[in-house]
Amino acid sequence: MQHNVYFDGNVQSLTFTKGQDRATVGVIKPGRYTFGTSTEETMTVVSGILKARLPGSSEWKAYGEGESFVVPPNQSFDVECDADVVYTCIYR
Amino acid sequence: MQHNVYFDGNVQSLTFTKGQDRATVGVIKPGRYTFGTSTEETMTVVSGILKARLPGSSEWKAYGEGESFVVPPNQSFDVECDADVVYTCIYR
Repeated sequence: MQHNVYFDGNVQSLTFTKGQDRATVGVIKPGRYTFGTSTEETMTVVSGILKARLPGSSEWKAYGEGESFVVPPNQSFDVECDADVVYTCIYR
Repeated sequence: MQHNVYFDGNVQSLTFTKGQDRATVGVIKPGRYTFGTSTEETMTVVSGILKARLPGSSEWKAYGEGESFVVPPNQSFDVECDADVVYTCIYR
């Protein structure tokens, strides 16, 4: 299991496998961050509310617990939260 | 955010806050483990299937995604899985 640390420790994740897919589960501390994708990523909120501005969009949308969004490969997107968020990310 | 490592790295977790509650989100690699509680813990399966044998019980029960169980303080309980499990644990 790999432990990943980003943004001075404000975003951290652990790797796991879901069926045949590589995945991570992580925690995002309050703040705004820009993530990049190398594969298609499906991000699902497990706890908290995550605001995201997806590639090609100028609008922020809020995702609550159980809600997901998909980001294509080789894109960047912005996320923001004002309380801790737990998320899973599945890579395809 | 704290990163906890247990059982030679086969169980790892990250701390977060959910409302007023302390919580962790973690990954359990395949195997059988005995956990101990210091406070009441509500454990919820986020990904995979976790078998648990709760304090005072001789029976194993399987918990799927979204299912929870509560363990009183100062108890030990057993968990087992044959594929990666992601869980959250809320402490009260």
